Amino acid sequence: MKRKFLMIAVTFATSLCAALPASAQFAKPEDAVKYRKAAFTVMGNHFGRISAMAQGKVPFDAAAATANAEIVAMMAALPFSAFPEGTSGTEKGTPKAKVWTERAKFDEGAKAMQAETIKLVAAAKSNNLDALKAAVGNTGKTCKSCHDSFRNE
Amino acid sequence: MKRKFLMIAVTFATSLCAALPASAQFAKPEDAVKYRKAAFTVMGNHFGRISAMAQGKVPFDAAAATANAEIVAMMAALPFSAFPEGTSGTEKGTPKAKVWTERAKFDEGAKAMQAETIKLVAAAKSNNLDALKAAVGNTGKTCKSCHDSFRNE
Repeated sequence: MKRKFLMIAVTFATSLCAALPASAQFAKPEDAVKYRKAAFTVMGNHFGRISAMAQGKVPFDAAAATANAEIVAMMAALPFSAFPEGTSGTEKGTPKAKVWTERAKFDEGAKAMQAETIKLVAAAKSNNLDALKAAVGNTGKTCKSCHDSFRNE
Repeated sequence: MKRKFLMIAVTFATSLCAALPASAQFAKPEDAVKYRKAAFTVMGNHFGRISAMAQGKVPFDAAAATANAEIVAMMAALPFSAFPEGTSGTEKGTPKAKVWTERAKFDEGAKAMQAETIKLVAAAKSNNLDALKAAVGNTGKTCKSCHDSFRNE
């Protein structure tokens, strides 16, 4: 079951990348900005719900953790096609120009995060709170790493 | 393959509804508003990409249509847990108070839309442009029906 989902998730992420090229998807740069912010909002919300379980703020519920982790993993595939050139900023929360001058590093960070979210699903499904805590920690590290490097704080 | 995905999608939507109760998910009403707008933004973007194919504005590509339709179907399950009481509005794009006074009808509309998005995935996978056009039309009707009744224009 776990392997089956992982396969589906990987297939999904791969086919998505193939089917949704990183350019020409947004008529205007502001459409890309709105879209990527929306995708991060949804992803962050569901990651937050799992983190709350990992932190003991809400009771651990493997089914809810799994449903949330699946959403996180799916959302993780989406925002990175929405960083067209010229959409950096200086305000809190906006991307630094480094996203484009160090694009390979940025893309690598995105891939690392996506990989951790797939492990997060497996951990949630394992119905083992310690495994979930570890996966939440590892996923969170990949989020933070990119934010520290590429996002204005 | 089609049936398999439909099964997965239905299972996903069902387990999601069971695992994500409609209350107590958002600390503040404005968090719910931000979340639901984000979910609709992502869904609308990917539905728009399929519509563009159906309308002949971009070449029909079954793989891309399928990837987009899967995102639409998954996003369709999300926003309706994020309509807590007291988050109606009067501005363009905000929900009317009717969402809460006629909640059963609103929920029924949401379910109808979710069902059409699952058929949209099947149509995209069928690699038949006429089937896709029909499914885009049917899905769009369920969007419009709720917008006409429940959204300030």
